[in-house]
Formats: sequence, C-alpha cells, structure tokens
Amino acid sequence: MKGAPSACSANYVSMTPIRFLERAATVHADKPSIVYGGLWFSWKETHGRCLSLASALLNLGISHLDIVAALAPNIPELYELHFAVPMAGAVISALNTNLDATTLSVILEQLEAKIMFVDYQFIEVVLNSFNIISHGKCKPPQLVVIHDYNKQPSFIFKNLPPDTLNFNQLLEKGRADFEIRMPTNECDPISVNYTSGSTGTPKGAVYSHRGAYLNSLAAISRFDMKPMPVFLWTVDMFRCNGWCFTWAMAALGGTNICLRNVSAKAMFDEISLHNVTHLCGPPALLNVIADAPQSEKKPLPLGVSITVAGVLPPFQVFHKVAELGFSVNVGYGMTEAMGPVLVRPWKPNSGDELTEHISYGDEGLTLFMMEGFDVKDPNTMKSTPCDGKTIGEIMFRGNTMMLGYLKNQQLTKEAFREGWYRTGDLGTKQKDGSIRLKDRAKDMIYSSGEAVSSLEVEAVLLSHPKVLNAAVVGKYDEQMVESPFAVIKLKEGCWTTVEDIIRFCKARLDTHMVPQSVVFGDLPVNSTGKVQKFLIREKIKCGG
Amino acid sequence: MKGAPSACSANYVSMTPIRFLERAATVHADKPSIVYGGLWFSWKETHGRCLSLASALLNLGISHLDIVAALAPNIPELYELHFAVPMAGAVISALNTNLDATTLSVILEQLEAKIMFVDYQFIEVVLNSFNIISHGKCKPPQLVVIHDYNKQPSFIFKNLPPDTLNFNQLLEKGRADFEIRMPTNECDPISVNYTSGSTGTPKGAVYSHRGAYLNSLAAISRFDMKPMPVFLWTVDMFRCNGWCFTWAMAALGGTNICLRNVSAKAMFDEISLHNVTHLCGPPALLNVIADAPQSEKKPLPLGVSITVAGVLPPFQVFHKVAELGFSVNVGYGMTEAMGPVLVRPWKPNSGDELTEHISYGDEGLTLFMMEGFDVKDPNTMKSTPCDGKTIGEIMFRGNTMMLGYLKNQQLTKEAFREGWYRTGDLGTKQKDGSIRLKDRAKDMIYSSGEAVSSLEVEAVLLSHPKVLNAAVVGKYDEQMVESPFAVIKLKEGCWTTVEDIIRFCKARLDTHMVPQSVVFGDLPVNSTGKVQKFLIREKIKCGG
Repeated sequence: MKGAPSACSANYVSMTPIRFLERAATVHADKPSIVYGGLWFSWKETHGRCLSLASALLNLGISHLDIVAALAPNIPELYELHFAVPMAGAVISALNTNLDATTLSVILEQLEAKIMFVDYQFIEVVLNSFNIISHGKCKPPQLVVIHDYNKQPSFIFKNLPPDTLNFNQLLEKGRADFEIRMPTNECDPISVNYTSGSTGTPKGAVYSHRGAYLNSLAAISRFDMKPMPVFLWTVDMFRCNGWCFTWAMAALGGTNICLRNVSAKAMFDEISLHNVTHLCGPPALLNVIADAPQSEKKPLPLGVSITVAGVLPPFQVFHKVAELGFSVNVGYGMTEAMGPVLVRPWKPNSGDELTEHISYGDEGLTLFMMEGFDVKDPNTMKSTPCDGKTIGEIMFRGNTMMLGYLKNQQLTKEAFREGWYRTGDLGTKQKDGSIRLKDRAKDMIYSSGEAVSSLEVEAVLLSHPKVLNAAVVGKYDEQMVESPFAVIKLKEGCWTTVEDIIRFCKARLDTHMVPQSVVFGDLPVNSTGKVQKFLIREKIKCGG
Repeated sequence: MKGAPSACSANYVSMTPIRFLERAATVHADKPSIVYGGLWFSWKETHGRCLSLASALLNLGISHLDIVAALAPNIPELYELHFAVPMAGAVISALNTNLDATTLSVILEQLEAKIMFVDYQFIEVVLNSFNIISHGKCKPPQLVVIHDYNKQPSFIFKNLPPDTLNFNQLLEKGRADFEIRMPTNECDPISVNYTSGSTGTPKGAVYSHRGAYLNSLAAISRFDMKPMPVFLWTVDMFRCNGWCFTWAMAALGGTNICLRNVSAKAMFDEISLHNVTHLCGPPALLNVIADAPQSEKKPLPLGVSITVAGVLPPFQVFHKVAELGFSVNVGYGMTEAMGPVLVRPWKPNSGDELTEHISYGDEGLTLFMMEGFDVKDPNTMKSTPCDGKTIGEIMFRGNTMMLGYLKNQQLTKEAFREGWYRTGDLGTKQKDGSIRLKDRAKDMIYSSGEAVSSLEVEAVLLSHPKVLNAAVVGKYDEQMVESPFAVIKLKEGCWTTVEDIIRFCKARLDTHMVPQSVVFGDLPVNSTGKVQKFLIREKIKCGG
C-alpha cells in the first residue's frame, strides 16, 4: 500500500476518562451529576469544580505523574478528585479507609505522594501514620482536609502540620479556565489502587488512562447500563476507582448519589428518593439488605440492579434480596483487572451452585474489552481441554488490565508471566466453552493424592441447615500429608456435633474430600468479607 | 512517580475488529453468523472460513498492507472478506457496485490492488475497466470470481484473464489452522472506502484497525443494540464497511441476513422469517417500504429499528413507515467519519423539521467515541456562540475518524486543517448546546448580501402540496449577483405554475430567500439519492 495516510491530531486522540467529563459538561450540562444529602451539582458545575481543583493542584507544585493520595468515604470531593487529579497530569491513589496507621504508613512510603486529601473523620489515623513515617526517610505528603459540607468545622484539629490546607479554600483559589493537561501518552498512569488481598504486603495496581477509558466503557456493557442511570455509591471509590464507575457515570451522564455510611436505612431511603437504578459492592451488601428491619424497607416498584463480587453468601440471602425487588448480579474480577471482568445475573431456581460462579458462555458482552480469557496449564501455557474435568489456571490478557504493581517489577513480571495475567484461580472448561471456577490455586487441598477444591467442600457445608458460614483449608499431619480441615460458624441459636457434620459430608462427597477435622467458631474475614484462609492456616500451624 | 510499570503484551493488545470474530467463535460458537437464502453458517464456521481465506490470500502472495479489492453485493463472501483480508495483514477495499467502467478504472489505478474479488454479476464492468487500465501503466489485479452459492456457474465467462481464480476453489486451498497476522500497530490501515461524494474525483478514505474497532463499539451504542441482534443487510457493505456493522455484528454475536437485491418484498419476507431487529441504509429505503404494494407487506409485531442517513424524504413517507411498525431513526455522518456519527429517533408529531436533523443535546451515547464535536468559525477556529443565529462549520475530531485519503496528502491536510475534520456542513448552536444543520458550506447562497440556506428554502418548497422533491442553488446574473434558483419535481399527476410556487414562498420566506427562477423537471441524483447540485449549477452556466 502506497500513499497511506497516518494518524494525526484530528483522528488520534489519547483515550482518557477525562474526555467523559468534558463531554458530560456539554451534553448533560444542567443534569444532576452528584447528589449528596442536600447538596446538588450539575455536570457543568462538576466540570468547573474539577478544573478549578486541577489548577489549584498545579499551584501547589504538583507536576506530571506526581501521586496525589486521598483517604475519604464516598463523598463528592473524592469523586471530583478522580477527574481533577488526572486533569492536572497527576495520578490519583484513593486509599482504603479501613487501614490501620501502620499499613497506611507502609503505603504512603511506597506512594511518595506530594499531596494527600483526607476527610475529617480520618485525620487521626493519618497523623498516626505520619508519626510512623517520620521515623523513616520519606517526607509525609502535604495534607488537604475535607470538612463535611453541611457542618462548620466544629473543632480545630490539634497536631496538624502547619502547611495543612482546607479543601474549600484550595478550590476557591483554582481557576475554572484551566487548560487540562491531557496525557501525551494514553498508556500513562492515571491511578494506583491497593489490592485488598488475602496476603500480607500491600500491592499497588497501577491503571493507565487507556485502560481506565476502555474499562469504563466495558463496565457500561457488563452492567447493562443505559444512558443517565442513577448510581448509589455503595461500592467504595477506593476499590478499583469504584469499579471504574467514577468515570463511567460521566460517560453516561448519570447521577452519582454519594453516601458517607452504608446502612440498610440509608440505601432504601436514597433508592426511593432518587429512583436509583444501580448499586454494587461486596457481598455483605446483600446481608445488610436481607437483614434490614421491616420498618426500614421500602417498596422498589422500578426494580434496582445490584451487583456483588467476592465470596458469596448463602442462597437464602440471594432469595430474600431478590424478593424485595432487586435484580441481583454476580461479578467475578480482581483489582488487577480493574474490578469485575464478568457479570452475570443470578437466577433464582436455576440450581446455581455458588462454586460455579464464572460461566463464560452466553454472556453476551460481559467480556467486552478483555481480549483473552482462558483456562491454561500454568506450566505449559496450553489451553485446557473442554472436558469439564481438567483443572487449569484462569488467565486474562487485554487492554483493561493494570499496567502492573507500583515499585514491584518482580511481582509484575510474575503476574504477567508469558504475556498473560495469572489470576491464581483454578477452573475447568465445559464442553460448551464455559468456565467453572474451582478454587484459588493456593486454596486447593491435595488429599490422598487427589486435588480437592475447598470451595466444593464449603458448598456442601453451607447447604447444611445449621451452618451459617464455613471455610476449608488443608491441614498437614506430622507426615506432611494434607487433609481437609473445616472451620464452621453456626447460625444463631443452632448447635450440632463434629460427627453430624462429617456424616453430612460423607453422604455428599467422595471420601478424600470429607473434612478430617472440624472446629466451630468465627471465621477471620477482611474488610471485603473475604475469609483470610492464611490466618486459619497459621492458627493450625501454631496448634490452633 | 517512581517505579511505574509500563505496558506489556498482557495489558496492551492492539485494537482490531479481528478480535470480535475471535471472541464470537468461542462465545457464540454455534449461533448463526450468516443466513443467506438457504445458506447458513455458525460463528465457528465463519471464523474457520475466514482463517482459510486469509491463509489462501497469503499463498497468492499478498503481503503486509497490500490492498485487496472486492466488487460484490451484500453476500456472505463479501462479509467474510471483511475479516479474512485484515487477518492476512492486508487492507480491504469494497467498491461501489454502481460504478461505471471508467470510474472503476480510475479507482483501481489508485488502489493498485493485487487481488480483486468480483461477484459474477459484475464481471463485465470489471473487464471493461481493465481494458481502460491496460492502456495506462498499472497492472490490473488478479481476479477471484464469486459464483452464486446455489447456482452452477451456468456459463464460462469469455475474456477472463488466464490467472483468474474461483472463490470456492481458493477457499478450499486455505488452512483453518492459519495464524492470524495481527496488526503490529493498531493505527495500521484496515480498509479503504471511496466516498460517494457530490463532487467529481473519487476519494478513498482510509480507516485504521483502531478506528474500526472503536467505531464498531460506538455503533452498538448509537444504534442502541443489544447482544445478538438480527441485522438485515440493506446498507451496502461498500459504504463505510457497511457503517462498520460488518464488524459490529461479530462483536455482538448477531446474525447477518445477507441480501443480494433490496426490494420491498425481500425486506418484508426476511424480516418476518428471521425476526430481524435492525436494518439501515439510504433514505430511499423508506420510500421502497412506504410504496410497497399491500400484498408484499407483512405485520411486524416485534418492531424493527430502521436507520437512514442522507437527504431525507418528505414527512409523509416517515409517517407511512412508522405506521407499518418500524421505529425510524435518522443518522448524520459521512464516509470520513466511518458512517453516521449521530443517530436520533424520528418522532412523529414532534414538529421536526427536516432541515434540522442534527441535534446534539439529549443524545445520550450518540457521540460516543467522537472526542470533539463543535461548530466553529472555519477561519478563526473559535467556537460559535450558542445564540441560534451565528453560522459556523460543523467539525469533528476523534479516534473514529478516517486516517485520511489514499494518495492524497493535499486533500487530507485540508480536511484535517488545524486538527479538526471539516465536514463542510454549516450549522448554528442553540442555547441548550444542541446543533442545527443549516446547509453544506458550498450550497449556501449569498442573495442580496445575506446568507441563505438552500435547505431552508427547499423545506418550504417540500411543504407545497404538489411538490415531490426540490433543489435550490445559487444562480449568478451577468453582474455576478447571486439569487436562489429552484428545480422542482412535481408529484405524479400534479401541475402548477412558477407564479404559484413563488407566491407560496413569498408567504413563508424573507424576500431575499424567495427563488428568482423556478424550473420543473427531474433532479440529478447520485447512487445514494443525494442531489448533485454541482450538475444543476453546470447546467445553469451552460444556459440551462
């Protein structure tokens, strides 16, 4: 081909979620962007505030690809930072509000953020983390405190560093005619998201502008959203930038209903007041809704889509939530893949087993933008046969994958070995090409020489009428032979025996899958409700 | 930011529509991809045939970025070439089947295609064009003839070059285990589409893999398509690669209903047989449907979405089509922007004026992927004020814009002057930010020193009860003073006088807008139904 034209500025525009806000400010100018209690913004206003904030950040000395940290609940200011920080050419890192001072100090040392926005409720933990940091070699970031919009700052915080600023004062100093620092390279970083992880060290997954843009569009398809949805913020914005819905809402011209604290009452009130169309978050949301007292529940005549991702609660909870008028969806994903990659409706009476919550068959657009999705032998990298039996590792590749881990080339290399992201999850492929999740690679138990999926054993335990929750790990005896070990949390007011549980399992499982040991008690869970199996294993090692 | 990871093969995958077919072959493996009369393929089969075809092309000596031309109606083979050619690393150019031998020879000389696929119906015009080419310096491409699937080639074509091949024989020589030549750079060309243009010289708009991928996704949103639509091929695949629906159908796992000849009977039959969900094409489609004899019409209980783009027929036609059960949409776009950029529903009784068929307000996702869309002063490049009066040129920029014109740096540069694509269309911006189309820049008439939109005058003429169609251009008198000149086609069986028309206009338009001359007769239209105003102007110059 001779005389082929090449890309130019009219036909090659770097993909970045900033464009969504630019467009919303024109197309959806006067429509509501954010509602927070009595506070209300239009897309034009949100655009203007973000521009001002971006210009104020530059005045503070922020330069290209500097990191700006934020520790806040789902309030308008944290939403705005998701645009303002990238508009200033910088990188946002929204941090988990459940972190303790020690973990926070480790993360802040890794981030080397220049500025940190902090909600007034979280000042103490930040100052404590600064005390830890100051013993090290890294200078803590300059603080910008966010006060509650409808409360006068009722007290002056002691011990705040002298250069601490106030969000509103900072905003006022900004200029709305600011010229956006668009990324020169669409693969430049836009954000750092720490994984909630089930293991010790925090890992900062770095997202690119390109990835964030494409994953926002993918989310719209995966969650089957129409233009102008009303989104209730129950998923933390610090989780994969709110599963990328921070940006997707601007793409859709939707309305963000911000929420400082999630409770059944708050959810039902906001849903009913604003005709919420979508909400999502950890599976614990389902429990909160199912357990809501009758007085707090409200009718949902329009139907509300709720999507949860994580370790799923028992069947009954799903049924309860569906009966209240929610359409329930289940997602599968991880921080490295920018949130749920796959979303599918949960269907009552479908005989759905909770252990089989990936199904890559009729999913329509669910895997939009993820160019590769396969189950492979992690050593040979060969695709596993569609026999429903051969277990392999679930792997992804595509433009909606993180760039890698911050300051951790080694982990990044391992995660992307041979050009595929290793999820660490095991699965089988069925004849129809669908994939069934079997277990986390490290949670497989090798009992009597056979691989046992801990999830399959847990599913049987959860079907016991008295069991509320269960976790199964491998326990080694003195000869280093592994066998299933179950920790069981019984329902309130119930009691049973180890023998009863084992008998129940024997009737339903192959012998090598039946737990050899059973204990009753609380399961250690992290902030997303994930059972921390490594803690159970440690406890067993220490002799329980 | 220190220690930032960068893109790698696991998280940076070149965007190309080829991925849609790869995915459809897995996710929608056994679902119907193509139906053509009694012929039926699944997505797995289509994938296999495209791989074979790609490998056969390489065997013929096709190499990276070579051009493969095709001249065929909307048959399965042309659909397959849209994937097979790019899979071989080459560039597809589907040519207008209405071209005469002379124009075809000009295009073929410009393309320098190595291979040309030709449907049996179009062999004669191709051979004639070869005769013209052979007098020049360029070697005509090697031919591959496509015979009708259900007919034995009933005659041997005389005069075919000795190296001519047969599609099915070529396909049989291919290997389905072919390894796809994925684009190393996503901005590499994937196709060349000649504009139907209202001016003389054919211009080949070159699309990139990136643009085609993103525009396919954008089309899904613009046309409000759900997964697995049933698409009736009434828009020519040689128009912007079928408005990119060739590729979008694979992204959605939809079913392509191929159609050699468009007629009212064929459309109603296919719609009713296959539950067609979408069709689109030139506005003439609406006339064909509206004028269908009662015996050919069929009930459409499920509703069918029809989208037309081009010069719109009168109101009554829309009403008739809507009454038959179609939901009618109107698109605005051009070959350079890969088809309709903006699609909006036509609403009966909305007081919609046909001259105002762009409206950039509540459009939701319609401008998805087009990063810039504005009305600007073409000289100062300043955005026009939202006053509903100031006329400027409508301009675009974004990733779904062509790369440029083949072998025409000068035209490419002009089209993209200062980083924006100049549509040549004039419009105003309203207070609410919406845009109203006023006219083609070159169709504006400067009468008594005032700019007159020919479309506005035509709209008045079209509202005359006896007028079927009308075109207004500027006519210069001996003093080079311009005034409106109208050509009017009356409805069948109607007659009227010049005086009546002028009186009708005077009652509805400012004096300077009223046509000074009126003639009755046929309007010169091109293959898309666009009035060729330049032909009217030429005729006037030659004294009528």
